[in-house]
Amino acid sequence: MATELPPASPSLAQSRAWFARAAEVIPGGQYGHTAPAAGLPGVFPYFSEEAYGCRFRDVDGHEYLDFMCGYGPIVLGHAHPEVEEAAERERARGRVHNQPSRIMVELAELLTERIDCADWAVFAKNGSDVTTWALQVAREATGRKKVFLLEGAYHGVDAWCTPGYGGLIEEDRRHVHRYRWNDLESLEALFREHGDEVAAVFTTPYHHPGFAPSVWPAEGFLPGMQALCERYGAVLVLDDIRVGFRLDARGSHRVVGFEPDLACYCKAIANGYPLAAAVGRDSLRSAAGRVFLTGSYWNNPESMAAALATLRILERDRVPDRIRAMGERLGAGLEAAARRHGRTLRMTGPPSAPYPWLEGDDDLRELQRFCAAAVRRGAFFHPHHNWFLSAAHDEASIDAAVAVAEEAFAACAAGEGGDSDGR
Amino acid sequence: MATELPPASPSLAQSRAWFARAAEVIPGGQYGHTAPAAGLPGVFPYFSEEAYGCRFRDVDGHEYLDFMCGYGPIVLGHAHPEVEEAAERERARGRVHNQPSRIMVELAELLTERIDCADWAVFAKNGSDVTTWALQVAREATGRKKVFLLEGAYHGVDAWCTPGYGGLIEEDRRHVHRYRWNDLESLEALFREHGDEVAAVFTTPYHHPGFAPSVWPAEGFLPGMQALCERYGAVLVLDDIRVGFRLDARGSHRVVGFEPDLACYCKAIANGYPLAAAVGRDSLRSAAGRVFLTGSYWNNPESMAAALATLRILERDRVPDRIRAMGERLGAGLEAAARRHGRTLRMTGPPSAPYPWLEGDDDLRELQRFCAAAVRRGAFFHPHHNWFLSAAHDEASIDAAVAVAEEAFAACAAGEGGDSDGR
Repeated sequence: MATELPPASPSLAQSRAWFARAAEVIPGGQYGHTAPAAGLPGVFPYFSEEAYGCRFRDVDGHEYLDFMCGYGPIVLGHAHPEVEEAAERERARGRVHNQPSRIMVELAELLTERIDCADWAVFAKNGSDVTTWALQVAREATGRKKVFLLEGAYHGVDAWCTPGYGGLIEEDRRHVHRYRWNDLESLEALFREHGDEVAAVFTTPYHHPGFAPSVWPAEGFLPGMQALCERYGAVLVLDDIRVGFRLDARGSHRVVGFEPDLACYCKAIANGYPLAAAVGRDSLRSAAGRVFLTGSYWNNPESMAAALATLRILERDRVPDRIRAMGERLGAGLEAAARRHGRTLRMTGPPSAPYPWLEGDDDLRELQRFCAAAVRRGAFFHPHHNWFLSAAHDEASIDAAVAVAEEAFAACAAGEGGDSDGR
Repeated sequence: MATELPPASPSLAQSRAWFARAAEVIPGGQYGHTAPAAGLPGVFPYFSEEAYGCRFRDVDGHEYLDFMCGYGPIVLGHAHPEVEEAAERERARGRVHNQPSRIMVELAELLTERIDCADWAVFAKNGSDVTTWALQVAREATGRKKVFLLEGAYHGVDAWCTPGYGGLIEEDRRHVHRYRWNDLESLEALFREHGDEVAAVFTTPYHHPGFAPSVWPAEGFLPGMQALCERYGAVLVLDDIRVGFRLDARGSHRVVGFEPDLACYCKAIANGYPLAAAVGRDSLRSAAGRVFLTGSYWNNPESMAAALATLRILERDRVPDRIRAMGERLGAGLEAAARRHGRTLRMTGPPSAPYPWLEGDDDLRELQRFCAAAVRRGAFFHPHHNWFLSAAHDEASIDAAVAVAEEAFAACAAGEGGDSDGR
């Protein structure tokens, strides 16, 4: 494997040249989750050329083992043949129609059969589409305004929840209140103060903030949240966009033991084809029917066919089990490599979507050096965001990544990327 | 042609059966712009099977001449080979990457070269993504809150603009004010009252409300709007999502003679591949860079490759001229057919995206009867929304549609769809 990897400190000449062109015609050159400031400027490539299986190649010709999977959508591996075939069959029938396709019904049937809290489903194109719509459905169902959000959670780019600061006005968040993860008392306090005004409580299956370790729910935290929502008549919304269908083919709430009233999915639902979904209980069906939801490409059956194929493969091949096993192999390998170099690394959160954390590195400098050294050696490790594994990751690619990590820890110990390093 | 059309009153047995299944698992069975209440229930098919060129086939096997084109995205005709080839080349390199593709830069370069008010571009997946973001950019640039919207215009499904009623709270629209089309005084009055608080004025290139005729701008109306925005320091946002690139390959504002500060595109930009874009002036570049914008499928080069191909074909083949000529042929044919049956039909708005209006039919009953009779005979005419033509519409298909209209007017005159009609 090592000979297939790019040399250390690969040239990013083409990435830089294209970024310079981009900066002329795109504000900031790139935006959103691929903006350079979100990653490792000068180390991460800026433009991708091709992705296949568990690898991708950048515009300078360097190949990387991919541990981001497009930030989550790629759950079966890039360009999975069965998904591509299913999508191609529908694509040949046209892209956007005046009516939905039968595929939409079949997909809604599959989701409602498979997900225990799902009596109905709707579809959209972005995660933000369905989280924002879910809030409106909760407001419509309850006649209330307030929403309790988890401090540090990401639910999309709309004004009520965006992590950005630009363009917001005070009214956007007048009814948004924040509770803390694994701090049921912080949520109870909000209920005591605003319980008769709260439309919805949003949660994630575990806490996966950016720039910080992932945290599993403490015993009783999510059931306690569910009980509070029931007592006060608030809609419990699960934002399962980050890892939905990656941890469990029937929804991540099954891994952590609670039942939401409404759940939002995106990313892994169609192995990269653009689709989002919201599902919910019968008690919310009427309200859901009254909150307008549509978009220019809603009647595109290709993405729904890709989702049907992806969801069937996930269950048929027990993909979540496989990815978890590969993630455990990766985590054990990386943690052992760190120990051999005198560091304590914890791979936090689920093994199939792990977030790395180096003990005693609260400013992330060491983690950034480590990830930079690994990226230069062909393993695309992110220091600020959880990683993602796919069904295309096998023992050989995991072991290759662990070997890169071993070299990267050694290089860091030798000063690479440190203050005295000339890079 | 007539022999290829389905018989009058085609059976919708399959459409109805699938709708019954859908109603079990989807709130309302269907939602958004294809909800039955938005069209002609019992007449419009509920599910599409296949679309090709300027035609589509429903799940009962009936073929229709398509005058909706997926509600706008299909501008070159369904499944245009050059666009499909360009998309396929990128699709083979993977669907969603960790970084953008070079195609994003090439597409931003094309838009900024081609659109006179465009110094930069950003991309998203839905029209609502970019209209909502545009409002935030205007607020960020001006430090102000208020927005003036055109009464009856559609800008998407987000709370500040949705035509729906469900789930809204008072704060969503506290800073939204409405002016009337071709009534510069109504806009001036808003400026006089709120001029130092207004971030943005939204307009469309012409007025295209639902359930009503389209209206071109009066002489001086849009330049007057532009002058007011300049005087008061408000950002002038063009929502060109409905017909952008269909009327003019360089943006619809060129047809009506004004220059926006920021313009939003979607629908026809990529002949059905999901993509939206916003472009703007240099004066807004810094604010644009500060308003967070991202989504799960942002780094999907396929849709951008489809857009590059579509935009090049639109200019190379002078597609807007061709579609306009076909639209004029359709309009003249339909208006003449109406006259022969004693009705005055006006095809309002642009010929390539016409909205039909029968004089003296303010409750739309006659238009609904006419469109129902035409749909039953294989021409998919919509009574509540503007129609769309594509480059795949040729003289033969237009003439076939006019022949259907002739039969439909005759059938209406004979009582079909009337109060005494048993349907």
